Amino acid sequence: MESTRKITLSENEIPTHWYNIVADMPNKPLPPLNPGTHEPIGPEALAPLFPMELIMQEVSQERWVEIPDEVREVYKIWRPTPMFRATGLEKALGTSAKIYYKYEGVSPSGSHKPNTAVPQAYYNMKEGVKRITTETGAGQWGSALSFACQMFGIECDVYMVRISFDQKPYRKMMMQTWGANVYPSPSERTNAGRQILAQDPDTPGSLGIAISEAVEMAAMHDDTKYSLGSVLNHVLMHQTIIGQEAIKQLEKAGADMPDYVFAPFGGGSNFAGLALPFIHKNLTEGTNIRCIASEPTSAPKLTRGIFRYDFGDTVGMTPLIPMYTLGHTYVPAKIHAGGLRYHGAGAVVSQLLADELISAEAIDQLETFEAGITFAKAEGIIPAPEANHAIASVIRAANQANAAGTSPTILFNLCGHGNFDMLAYEDYFAGKLQKHEMTQAEVNAAVEKVDTPTISSVQAMLAQM
Amino acid sequence: MESTRKITLSENEIPTHWYNIVADMPNKPLPPLNPGTHEPIGPEALAPLFPMELIMQEVSQERWVEIPDEVREVYKIWRPTPMFRATGLEKALGTSAKIYYKYEGVSPSGSHKPNTAVPQAYYNMKEGVKRITTETGAGQWGSALSFACQMFGIECDVYMVRISFDQKPYRKMMMQTWGANVYPSPSERTNAGRQILAQDPDTPGSLGIAISEAVEMAAMHDDTKYSLGSVLNHVLMHQTIIGQEAIKQLEKAGADMPDYVFAPFGGGSNFAGLALPFIHKNLTEGTNIRCIASEPTSAPKLTRGIFRYDFGDTVGMTPLIPMYTLGHTYVPAKIHAGGLRYHGAGAVVSQLLADELISAEAIDQLETFEAGITFAKAEGIIPAPEANHAIASVIRAANQANAAGTSPTILFNLCGHGNFDMLAYEDYFAGKLQKHEMTQAEVNAAVEKVDTPTISSVQAMLAQM
Repeated sequence: MESTRKITLSENEIPTHWYNIVADMPNKPLPPLNPGTHEPIGPEALAPLFPMELIMQEVSQERWVEIPDEVREVYKIWRPTPMFRATGLEKALGTSAKIYYKYEGVSPSGSHKPNTAVPQAYYNMKEGVKRITTETGAGQWGSALSFACQMFGIECDVYMVRISFDQKPYRKMMMQTWGANVYPSPSERTNAGRQILAQDPDTPGSLGIAISEAVEMAAMHDDTKYSLGSVLNHVLMHQTIIGQEAIKQLEKAGADMPDYVFAPFGGGSNFAGLALPFIHKNLTEGTNIRCIASEPTSAPKLTRGIFRYDFGDTVGMTPLIPMYTLGHTYVPAKIHAGGLRYHGAGAVVSQLLADELISAEAIDQLETFEAGITFAKAEGIIPAPEANHAIASVIRAANQANAAGTSPTILFNLCGHGNFDMLAYEDYFAGKLQKHEMTQAEVNAAVEKVDTPTISSVQAMLAQM
Repeated sequence: MESTRKITLSENEIPTHWYNIVADMPNKPLPPLNPGTHEPIGPEALAPLFPMELIMQEVSQERWVEIPDEVREVYKIWRPTPMFRATGLEKALGTSAKIYYKYEGVSPSGSHKPNTAVPQAYYNMKEGVKRITTETGAGQWGSALSFACQMFGIECDVYMVRISFDQKPYRKMMMQTWGANVYPSPSERTNAGRQILAQDPDTPGSLGIAISEAVEMAAMHDDTKYSLGSVLNHVLMHQTIIGQEAIKQLEKAGADMPDYVFAPFGGGSNFAGLALPFIHKNLTEGTNIRCIASEPTSAPKLTRGIFRYDFGDTVGMTPLIPMYTLGHTYVPAKIHAGGLRYHGAGAVVSQLLADELISAEAIDQLETFEAGITFAKAEGIIPAPEANHAIASVIRAANQANAAGTSPTILFNLCGHGNFDMLAYEDYFAGKLQKHEMTQAEVNAAVEKVDTPTISSVQAMLAQM
């Protein structure tokens, strides 16, 4: 009998609902706070930036939120994504662990990001929004949103950090091919951009500045809204189609539910997308599936950060969110996994970590590239640097299982391909990659700067309301 | 009822056999000739370069050649590939034509090339070959072969045209990540390379020189063979899994067999892969499926070349092959669809064209990029420049059908994605792309240089043997 390598589903098996874990959480995430008054904010505070349907999803307590037909129609371009039994990797590692991975790199922009970009563009279109603004660093999120906006016929303005705009033309051209307007940030189009340029005409830009520009344009124009690619509840919820499909595929393959689920961790949507449906099983069916976030040692908010209210952006304009954080002004080392260079974790995953319903480990980028190259040689697919973090975790777990003589079932999120990241692999081969582990002094210095409300102070305030 | 956008097959529907059209051709392709004596050569003449199993496939008259299990096992990494109903493109064109496309860009290297690279690497491995050499221009073929060699644990030496080696690092890094040795050509490793470098140390290199280097290394080492990515019969045959899957998918979708099948044309394997199983239907079931090759106006061998014996390479080292050709010394303009910049067509497709069992049309690259961008915006997938030729043909056919008030079924080969070709799109948007249509004087000048045997002279010789 031939072995099964790839477990596929047909179009009509695309999930019909997103899963909202808030409905099942023993402790709900604490509310966002007004950055000025430190008081809880309601949905109306977000209205200048987001369409009402997304705001309602952001605060929803419903367990299942129906996916509109128009969104499922676009999902069909690449979903359901395949799940693989990693027979090549298992052989290369000499492990008796059963390793599976869900491959999100088959989307048009090459990562899991369109899973949320498509519904975000859809709801904006439905509410008459003409243009969505966003920021992008290397371009993964910007290209996903450009694709999604093109599918629903609305304009997309991407503020791309100037140094990436100049040095990484491939993603920029991809966005333009999908009809987006891509502006190097800082630009002359916004007050924020003009101010920065007046002070420093040659600035390389930053993600913080790009966010400021995108938010300003959305706030100042009635027909324009803003879009975020991770962190927020509704973004995490949109990604849960990954884990839902994975459960169906494991069942179809006759496999056990996994002992371990690994996914890379940036702001939380990559990890949440795969893990939350498995945590649902833990919470409602009594399974014991260990869901573990793989974060970089250069931005170890889950393993070494503090759980406290903090800003979502580096400038300090957003509402305050309860998050595991290294402080919103902390600038992680310039590792190649740009999608994981974020100071904090979304409210939902932070609460799950605080409640020990998930766990995390931090891995250095040298180890992640070694893992990624082992994977590419064994499985044939070259992973994105973000995905290499989960692969490194899997290899660690498989080696531990070998030492212990156990044969666990392991699942991970291969969140994207590395086609646009080949220069990162070149740096690895050329010996140019460095270890980037924060020292304890650096961690202390970073978190000491956080002067925003503590979790307990807000809990006390809420108890009195 | 929801519409069907993507028709998928499961792993066990990967074809079990390659289709060899030679068995069904009314006129078999004429034999290759020794370049010195102009006499027909037998399989033994190819033995220094290719493993015996591939040589036997090259001259096989069997209709169906079984695909080894080990090859199907690697095919499972990306096959069966999806077929799409192009609902977005149909809407954008306002056509009542039913348009389908087979998407080969889901392979690890992003094109249809691994379909033959994998069996070639496999048969070499089986016969104890330790190393395969090949040449590559921009890197599409080199990366497919690097991937395939890694899957079977043999060495891969790629001679990459120096200017591409320097200017297109992404594909080079991809090959190195899969463990291949990539040498800028000309190199100091071969006699051919050293001679060229002695004359011109700063040469940018050429595909002809790179072929010479790869062939020399294979000829001089017993444990080393050479590999080609198109033109030859066995290469075309390996690609027929594309068309076989497409037929199953059309049947599964309840669709009519196509009125038109379009595919890009370089040396023939892209086109043959999709078209030959449909021509099999025409030859054995009496269908009338029009299979049309889309070639660039800058290398129009099918529409404007002559049918004559010619060399496969620019230097004149290979056996003479009966082909539609512009002359082996003709250097096509540097269009972005590098995979289509070839002077001739393989013997099988040339004979099919001579017998009017297929047809061809030539399209300028400006029109192809307009078509590709229309497609990307409508369907979400950004195509490779080669694929844009087929898309342009489809758009022409749909517009003609609209004008005639007909609703044909159209199928084409979306042979790869454009992730590594974004600079080509940038050139298009920047207005830097030019028309490259050969003038009649240029065609005449090119074909007048061909002084190799004519088809009729060889037929006369064979009649006397």
